[in-house]
Amino acid sequence: MKADKTKVNRLLKTARGQLDGILKMVEEDRYCIDISNQLMATQAILHSANKEIIHAHLQHCVLDALQEGNADEKMEEIMAIIDKISK
Amino acid sequence: MKADKTKVNRLLKTARGQLDGILKMVEEDRYCIDISNQLMATQAILHSANKEIIHAHLQHCVLDALQEGNADEKMEEIMAIIDKISK
Amino acid sequence: MKADKTKVNRLLKTARGQLDGILKMVEEDRYCIDISNQLMATQAILHSANKEIIHAHLQHCVLDALQEGNADEKMEEIMAIIDKISK
Amino acid sequence: MKADKTKVNRLLKTARGQLDGILKMVEEDRYCIDISNQLMATQAILHSANKEIIHAHLQHCVLDALQEGNADEKMEEIMAIIDKISK
Repeated sequence: MKADKTKVNRLLKTARGQLDGILKMVEEDRYCIDISNQLMATQAILHSANKEIIHAHLQHCVLDALQEGNADEKMEEIMAIIDKISK
Repeated sequence: MKADKTKVNRLLKTARGQLDGILKMVEEDRYCIDISNQLMATQAILHSANKEIIHAHLQHCVLDALQEGNADEKMEEIMAIIDKISK
Repeated sequence: MKADKTKVNRLLKTARGQLDGILKMVEEDRYCIDISNQLMATQAILHSANKEIIHAHLQHCVLDALQEGNADEKMEEIMAIIDKISK
Repeated sequence: MKADKTKVNRLLKTARGQLDGILKMVEEDRYCIDISNQLMATQAILHSANKEIIHAHLQHCVLDALQEGNADEKMEEIMAIIDKISK
């Protein structure tokens, strides 16, 4: 992975902490809308981590593609990511 | 929460398990695109859990709104959820 | 439709005007990224129009549901909208 | 633009036709949910056109970046597109 490992780790661990909190909220039978909001906040953090990873990948992939001679394949990978991320 | 607690719990725990896997992938310096794909799979599970929760809420909220006499407030809450979920 | 017709019309006509502009950009063989950005701006306007319509619907649907005795059906419709809008 | 012009034109014109239809639906005071569904169908067509454009751009951008010596700038552009398209 080309992204800043410390930053990605921090985001992922925050998301995991929030997920533990949500499991507790479900256990305690908290209000649906509050749980839903927490879930969306967690998804937003994962989205940030994902963009961090993709951003770093893009900054390196052209160079990699050149060195490895597989630019087409790299662009197909990125397109597949765009397809999924924009659903 | 009005949703099926067993189902929501199962989805959230699957997501947490995947998140642990992703943290390990980061640790092992795995390929960016593979990590990104796993992250999006986890986001999709959280999205399923969220829709499960919102669905159950909608099925009950009209009735609740009647009993509590606050239909307007309930609809505002749902609109706020739609705003966030459709970003 | 329960939404402010003037506002919705204005948004839809702006989007249509932009769409005409995008067709011209394609004709003139403009830069991909510029066309893509214009397309996303147009999608954002349609999304605003859609939220305007859904918002007004929600503000009226509980009352309608009561009068028509079909709250369940209304909530199913809203859930279907949430499914599509959050894809 | 690097994308298949005929295909993109066809998608954009379909979207414009649908938009005209939606303006008529608003005029005729049709049911909110029906208008909302048509709007989302139109957004989906614009999204297809956008992906077509981005896909073609990606297939050419590495080559362009090499010839023009501005790979970094191209990747920044793509990242900006990903940011917007995944909102």
